Amino acid sequence: MNAKPRRTLTPVSWRDVRLEDGYWKRKQDVNHKTTLPMVYRKCRDTGRLDAIKLQWKEGQPHKPHVFWDSDVAKWLEASAYSLATHPDRRLAATVREIVERYAASQGPDGYINSHFRTVRPRDRWTNLRADHELYTAGHLIEAAVALHEATGNRAFLEVIRGFADHIDQTFGREMGKIRGYPGHQEIEMALVKLYRATGENRYLKLARYFLDERGRKPLYFHLESNDPAWAGDGILSITHQCEKPVRKMKALTGHAVRALYMLSGMIDVAGETRDAKLWQVCRRHWANIVQRRMYITGGIGSTPAQERLTFDYDLPNETAYAETCAAIALVFAGWRMLRIEPDRQYADVMERALHNGVMSGVSLTGDRFFYNNPLRVHPLAASMEHRGENRAIIRRKWFGCSCCPTNIVRLLASIGGYFYSTVDDAVYVHLYAASTTNLTVADQRVTLRQITDYPWSDTVEMSVEPESAVTFKLALRVPGWCEGASMSINGQSIAMPRLQRGYAGIKRRWQPGDRVAMTLPMPVRRTSAHPACRANVGMVALERGPIVYCLEQVDNGADLHRLSLPREAVIHARHQPGLLGGVTVLTIPHGRRLTDKGWSGRLYDGCSPASQVRQTITAVPYAVWANRGKGEMTVWLREN
Amino acid sequence: MNAKPRRTLTPVSWRDVRLEDGYWKRKQDVNHKTTLPMVYRKCRDTGRLDAIKLQWKEGQPHKPHVFWDSDVAKWLEASAYSLATHPDRRLAATVREIVERYAASQGPDGYINSHFRTVRPRDRWTNLRADHELYTAGHLIEAAVALHEATGNRAFLEVIRGFADHIDQTFGREMGKIRGYPGHQEIEMALVKLYRATGENRYLKLARYFLDERGRKPLYFHLESNDPAWAGDGILSITHQCEKPVRKMKALTGHAVRALYMLSGMIDVAGETRDAKLWQVCRRHWANIVQRRMYITGGIGSTPAQERLTFDYDLPNETAYAETCAAIALVFAGWRMLRIEPDRQYADVMERALHNGVMSGVSLTGDRFFYNNPLRVHPLAASMEHRGENRAIIRRKWFGCSCCPTNIVRLLASIGGYFYSTVDDAVYVHLYAASTTNLTVADQRVTLRQITDYPWSDTVEMSVEPESAVTFKLALRVPGWCEGASMSINGQSIAMPRLQRGYAGIKRRWQPGDRVAMTLPMPVRRTSAHPACRANVGMVALERGPIVYCLEQVDNGADLHRLSLPREAVIHARHQPGLLGGVTVLTIPHGRRLTDKGWSGRLYDGCSPASQVRQTITAVPYAVWANRGKGEMTVWLREN
Repeated sequence: MNAKPRRTLTPVSWRDVRLEDGYWKRKQDVNHKTTLPMVYRKCRDTGRLDAIKLQWKEGQPHKPHVFWDSDVAKWLEASAYSLATHPDRRLAATVREIVERYAASQGPDGYINSHFRTVRPRDRWTNLRADHELYTAGHLIEAAVALHEATGNRAFLEVIRGFADHIDQTFGREMGKIRGYPGHQEIEMALVKLYRATGENRYLKLARYFLDERGRKPLYFHLESNDPAWAGDGILSITHQCEKPVRKMKALTGHAVRALYMLSGMIDVAGETRDAKLWQVCRRHWANIVQRRMYITGGIGSTPAQERLTFDYDLPNETAYAETCAAIALVFAGWRMLRIEPDRQYADVMERALHNGVMSGVSLTGDRFFYNNPLRVHPLAASMEHRGENRAIIRRKWFGCSCCPTNIVRLLASIGGYFYSTVDDAVYVHLYAASTTNLTVADQRVTLRQITDYPWSDTVEMSVEPESAVTFKLALRVPGWCEGASMSINGQSIAMPRLQRGYAGIKRRWQPGDRVAMTLPMPVRRTSAHPACRANVGMVALERGPIVYCLEQVDNGADLHRLSLPREAVIHARHQPGLLGGVTVLTIPHGRRLTDKGWSGRLYDGCSPASQVRQTITAVPYAVWANRGKGEMTVWLREN
Repeated sequence: MNAKPRRTLTPVSWRDVRLEDGYWKRKQDVNHKTTLPMVYRKCRDTGRLDAIKLQWKEGQPHKPHVFWDSDVAKWLEASAYSLATHPDRRLAATVREIVERYAASQGPDGYINSHFRTVRPRDRWTNLRADHELYTAGHLIEAAVALHEATGNRAFLEVIRGFADHIDQTFGREMGKIRGYPGHQEIEMALVKLYRATGENRYLKLARYFLDERGRKPLYFHLESNDPAWAGDGILSITHQCEKPVRKMKALTGHAVRALYMLSGMIDVAGETRDAKLWQVCRRHWANIVQRRMYITGGIGSTPAQERLTFDYDLPNETAYAETCAAIALVFAGWRMLRIEPDRQYADVMERALHNGVMSGVSLTGDRFFYNNPLRVHPLAASMEHRGENRAIIRRKWFGCSCCPTNIVRLLASIGGYFYSTVDDAVYVHLYAASTTNLTVADQRVTLRQITDYPWSDTVEMSVEPESAVTFKLALRVPGWCEGASMSINGQSIAMPRLQRGYAGIKRRWQPGDRVAMTLPMPVRRTSAHPACRANVGMVALERGPIVYCLEQVDNGADLHRLSLPREAVIHARHQPGLLGGVTVLTIPHGRRLTDKGWSGRLYDGCSPASQVRQTITAVPYAVWANRGKGEMTVWLREN
């Protein structure tokens, strides 16, 4: 445990990682070819891009919405990442045009927002709770930082600095400033990025102010709204993470995405300001989330009521509201924890979320999206709930509140940036994916290449190409789920190094052409949930490597709840390149299915033991469910 | 099966049944002493009684609500029943005063409604869907019929006939009439009661019109509202049971109480008009409800979304919306089915609903009520849902929409009317309860007396006191749950008569002083739900006689989901007179509880087999749960 946290690791930027043919490259290619242009078209067709021209007038269609800029900003950010790995002159030109549009839309005081400049010019900063102004500002900042990093061009960064400076002059505890904070956290992370990009300390201080002011009494949202519903510690305060100051909260509560964006900002600020107390709070919140409030898919959010976290071990499967954005936010938070404390537990959670709760958010075709990502679906039951557009039985093209598609697109475009990092004379490999990177370690340029079919295959081969022989430590993560990992160097088995916080470090003088191979055995695992989880008692989930599996109706017939897995049943894993974009499928020849035998015309009866027949059960990765039409799905399966 | 249905049985009126000390008498006494006066006070204090004076003006408090009259009417109806069994001069005077108030409030055209006469005089009959005008009319009619039967005084009946005549002149297919029907069914049953009380055929025809017009295209609610949401067969049509004509509906759908009130009206109309086709529809709907959509408690309603029935076998426990009124409506429907077709299946369902889903609706003290009656509760989860006042974790004093308390009070006041009926030279005993009745059979007056501690005790003794020896058949229901029933007459065992549709009929020449005893063995039953029920797979409920049991946190500790019932575990039943008003309690000394052993700090793991410890499990009748503070509750228990 770090008493005083610091940014220990230096990430290898997405700029410097080239994906090679494999799981993530294929996902990123779809993202680049389909999702990114589709998000652009949606932003254009819904009026989001025109809105930036500030020409909208009352009575016209496409009235700019408060959070529209955030979608455009996330598309800009994604484009920045994409341009670095997939040069594209047309895309670059479009990005330039929109960036110039934003620059032209900036007020003399630096303010940027296409809604407030046109629809409600007098209402700026009057409803921080609901109006998402600081949230959209945060996304514009993240876009500007990414564009600067991608292109080296500072122009847009300077424009956005003007906006950030305006915000800095507007908010704070000093006389004459608004003592508020965002209704939807986001800007905290963004300000730390801006601080890192510019070295300007004010941005870091402003991020810390937003975090520390939150939850102080009298509550700003109460003062702002004069709404008595804010009195006391009711559901409004909980939803907005301000029932008490963030450092005093026992566990993260409220709206799941906001909670995890806030946590990400807290970790950033803790690391940059070396704030040991805040770091302890972050560790506590992280532990609570991943030990008590996280779905096995890495999804977060247990109720559609205000899209909230609820309470420890409350993880209902059918009514899960595991928003794609919340799983992405968990990746953000884990990445930030990992940077300060290189421990595989953080990368394990990132990997769990990425391969399951994040990737379930987008269809294989890249143009349809889930918002909530339930772990069990019955189409009739889901359709009964009428939760509007965010239903969970089939992916949709777009949402009125379309944060998830735009979050997916920026995450996948930058996925390479989460694989590697360095510290002093060590290189860390956190996530496995076919890729090539050029990095500097021990003052020397080294090319690292991963050759692997992970997550389907259990072997990762790394080629190490320093410019000339150099000594450094190559620290490879042995995932927490893995038992019996083994290694070889240049074809010779070696004893597994003793793991340091889950990383197998090989320190040696690396020669050009050295090859390290690691095998991470991937037997199918039957996973139980903690006995305190009401939803999963008596049930198991199937996992293989980092992949969580599910059963779909298309493979197993209707009434999935009738299926059960005998304790002794053998489970076969076989890779099927032609199925669902190429996935490893599990089959259980000796599964069981409850029959209706003896039940004619009765709903309740003493008839026992239940009549069962043998059925082959087929499980596919959770992330690819709902790519073959509507039907039932379940992650958890009764064991008997 | 009756080709042409008719009212086969003649019920013995509540007027002619005196409850003796026992289960229902104790419930009725609480109802009379506490619930009835409390409902009166609530009607008074909320302005419902003043509203009838038609003096309310805009700006004053207690603005009359559209359905307020229904609460007053249900209290009047309950008072009528109560006065017949518990003479009470003060109550009689109060009833007289309110009845006179209603008479004085009647418009020259016969119209009565305290909301529309004061708040929206121009809006009469303009929003049949939502305004509950025909619903409140129905309750006023039921009150008038009950008061007439209780007192013999026709005055109020004539007043209400004036209103019914006005409705008859207003609605129908004839030119110049409104071709509408109620948004909330109720008046159909009421009109049949009025027809029976007056012999006026127009009321029966009007009831049939309301039923048959429903669901015809173009939809009246669409025409009325001009709301495009009514186009197609969307959720609005389903909620209101008008997605198609009622005779063509495959299964009852939509709002549960409305569906079952409608079914009750359909059965009445089928029986009175000898409509074989409509009767077949009723049988189909009944079978679908009790074989596929009924909670084990007799509760009906599977989602809080529009308080609806959902689909076959969809019976979620925690989010059940088994409104007390819907269980009461199921009793109404079952009673009407039974009257046409004397078959124990109907009485079995009535008994299931009465002892479980209805009686759970009111506290032991008689002054607190549930609206929905879930079968599993976790207080934290329930509080997360924020469904407003109708929460399901603790009974409440009253509701803004207070249909359930007023329904309970009228049902309990008339409970004796569901015990006995006659046909030709037979007497049927449907429900067992200590009581005395005077009835006419084979043209002779007979006093029947039941001496029993049912439902706790398995023995029912009947004394038969004809004025002089007379031959008739005494048909005693052998409940469907019962195996091995036995009988004796005057202390001599007799062979069980062959059951006729579940009734054991003893035809003999009865002498004054004859005594029949029947024993209905009540071992504890482990009941499973049909394998198609997703919610209850792998679980059992415990029943004894007609009583469904549940586990409460106060007896079993928190985390009830950790408990399980080994297949071989012995279950003891013991009556505890001092507990919860006197109930038979079940204990399972060798139950099991999942422990946390081996789970420190992990949420998902392969650790198996799960660690369990022995725990004594205690179950109490579901109807009396939540009388000892807040806590978890579950009806269904894992079996292993």
